[in-house]
Amino acid sequence: MDIQSLVRELKLKNDNKIVMLVADGLGGLPVEPGGPTELEAAKTPNLDTLAKQGVQGLSIPIAPGITPGSGPGHLGLFGYDPVKYLIGRGALEATGVGFKLGPKDVAVRCNFCTLDAQGNITDRRAGRIPTEESAPLAIKLRQVKIPKVEVFVEPVKEHRFCVIFRGEGLGGDVADTDPQKTGVPPLDPVAANLQNQRTADVARQFIAQARAILIDQPKANGLTMRGFSAAPHIPTYEEVYGLKPAAIAVYPMYKGLAQLVGMEIVGKPNTLAEEIDVLEQAWNDYDFFFVHFKYTDSRGEDGNFTEKVKMIEQFDSVVPRVMKLKPKVLVVTGDHSTPARLAGHSWHPVPTLLVSDTCRPDGQQVFGERNALMGGLGQFQAIYLMPLALAHAEKLAKFGA
Amino acid sequence: MDIQSLVRELKLKNDNKIVMLVADGLGGLPVEPGGPTELEAAKTPNLDTLAKQGVQGLSIPIAPGITPGSGPGHLGLFGYDPVKYLIGRGALEATGVGFKLGPKDVAVRCNFCTLDAQGNITDRRAGRIPTEESAPLAIKLRQVKIPKVEVFVEPVKEHRFCVIFRGEGLGGDVADTDPQKTGVPPLDPVAANLQNQRTADVARQFIAQARAILIDQPKANGLTMRGFSAAPHIPTYEEVYGLKPAAIAVYPMYKGLAQLVGMEIVGKPNTLAEEIDVLEQAWNDYDFFFVHFKYTDSRGEDGNFTEKVKMIEQFDSVVPRVMKLKPKVLVVTGDHSTPARLAGHSWHPVPTLLVSDTCRPDGQQVFGERNALMGGLGQFQAIYLMPLALAHAEKLAKFGA
Repeated sequence: MDIQSLVRELKLKNDNKIVMLVADGLGGLPVEPGGPTELEAAKTPNLDTLAKQGVQGLSIPIAPGITPGSGPGHLGLFGYDPVKYLIGRGALEATGVGFKLGPKDVAVRCNFCTLDAQGNITDRRAGRIPTEESAPLAIKLRQVKIPKVEVFVEPVKEHRFCVIFRGEGLGGDVADTDPQKTGVPPLDPVAANLQNQRTADVARQFIAQARAILIDQPKANGLTMRGFSAAPHIPTYEEVYGLKPAAIAVYPMYKGLAQLVGMEIVGKPNTLAEEIDVLEQAWNDYDFFFVHFKYTDSRGEDGNFTEKVKMIEQFDSVVPRVMKLKPKVLVVTGDHSTPARLAGHSWHPVPTLLVSDTCRPDGQQVFGERNALMGGLGQFQAIYLMPLALAHAEKLAKFGA
Repeated sequence: MDIQSLVRELKLKNDNKIVMLVADGLGGLPVEPGGPTELEAAKTPNLDTLAKQGVQGLSIPIAPGITPGSGPGHLGLFGYDPVKYLIGRGALEATGVGFKLGPKDVAVRCNFCTLDAQGNITDRRAGRIPTEESAPLAIKLRQVKIPKVEVFVEPVKEHRFCVIFRGEGLGGDVADTDPQKTGVPPLDPVAANLQNQRTADVARQFIAQARAILIDQPKANGLTMRGFSAAPHIPTYEEVYGLKPAAIAVYPMYKGLAQLVGMEIVGKPNTLAEEIDVLEQAWNDYDFFFVHFKYTDSRGEDGNFTEKVKMIEQFDSVVPRVMKLKPKVLVVTGDHSTPARLAGHSWHPVPTLLVSDTCRPDGQQVFGERNALMGGLGQFQAIYLMPLALAHAEKLAKFGA
């Protein structure tokens, strides 16, 4: 069954508000056998209070055993089948820097590289050129002109930048030009089929002109292209759920992901506290709020258990401000687990808490992985979280007579 | 979502080893209300030690309420959708006696039967003729010659044997010839459609020649045919998982099933202890080991609770030898439940234990059905067991950026 099609049919509008607080990479692992996870070790009095009122469970982002990247992880939370709605690397990068992709766009993630006199790559990352040097170069590449194609070039960070081609008949099935090694020239952009021939030609023209523009650069005198991708066709929150959604995030990638499903980016917060400020200010203008907190994931990626615990405690500390707004439904979850012990994303299911006055209490007194295992949500696929939130917000009609 | 396609894309190679110990028909039922199941009654100190380190749960072989045969039960454990990959009875039988089916083969399971002077069946199993008498007869049938078709005849056990037709344009859609009663002649092989007409003709020729060869036999002077089946097209473990898999089993059917997914059959063990000998000897040559233990199922089928408990204890006793090899991931499970109380396969989910140093502990102290119900794996479909094992063995890349 396609749950999203069903929800689309049953959606109801009302003024109830849903808040989804995402602590990126929330789920963890004990450092020592039998020890607590990060969430279990953290002092989270506010989340524990909510655990008594709400239901908790373990969210499976994609499928058992599958470790998600940030894109699929968030799409799942947003209720979109992450395997069906694949977002290419180029599209994700463009979206991440705030570029709004349209239906005629193909986005490509590019790296500056260093070429020798023979045109062979000597450094695939242009000596990890700093952003201050690379951004002006990316902007210089906006001089490239290709007939019947609009070209956008967006600086990203260090050696990375992003190119968007806009025109008729462009497609995303073109192979990467990064040979993944030095001592050889960049590959030629090769189309996977006839339909993508034009895109490969456009890319070839871009590369030739860019090489001419960059010719005198000491480090960044060449480029490689990766992850050609057309704009993903994702139905919006308004279309699927009838919601007017706001996204509050610090990092561009998460703003980008939210934008892909039609959320409006609200405010320009730089800290979690500022994110909650934005939430308060925007409260009357939307009925769904996605609030993204990055640092639980960052400290997990660092392999720093203690710091991840602190980040979870910081996350917990803003919960009373959110509850003061009296959302009809609050969801607290993560897009995946990032156990400090693994210093990276993992496949372990994610502790998830749903609070509303229509929860059937599950007897759990605190929020954590072991409690979630016995919680009222059980183990469930992430895509069911939105239908559950909508149900508790009385935004879903009865199915069938 | 097709989890196997996803896993195929994400597979990574490394030297980590996975052991899957299958105690056939492991799951059980209490004999008296409130009593223990076979697994709960058994003294399993070694599995209980592992329960503290690992995660347990209940594996649903096919779907809730569906009782699997050995074929679908094992395919599910191996990660293949058992409803998609149907293995015909003939193919299963041929594979079970070690016959390697090719793409031009159609396998048929045959029974010797006794016919009277009018050609009517008087005994559908030829008086349960012993293997010593039936095997030479089956071999005699190798004299049958059919133009443009290679014919193979393989003895099985008692009244059972197997015929494989190899040639162009053969198919598996031919109806059984066993009328399922006595006093009537065997049915004519009837093709389901034009594409299978040639196979039906070939079968008819085989039957006619076989009758002539068997004419003087007192008991086995006729035959019936069942389960016409082409070789199933199942992708191999190497193709899907990038694994180099070994199968260690005593009984031909399980070797056959393992062979169908591309496992190599290792050793010729006759006991569980010998199976572990083989595991030790083959340790360096493979990265996945399927070890099959038959007698938990056999004693369950006998309806003998006490003896099934003993078999589980015997199974438990070899666990330390397996752990001494330090597999990265150990999976202990069954292909289905065979409660002694039901004296047969059942639909009840199967207690399953996964042990690895990346498990999120679930607080369970012993391995058993009631504990599995509260375990970290929850209730899950058997086809997710391989993805989970691969994830814990670090053999799956992240999905999406």
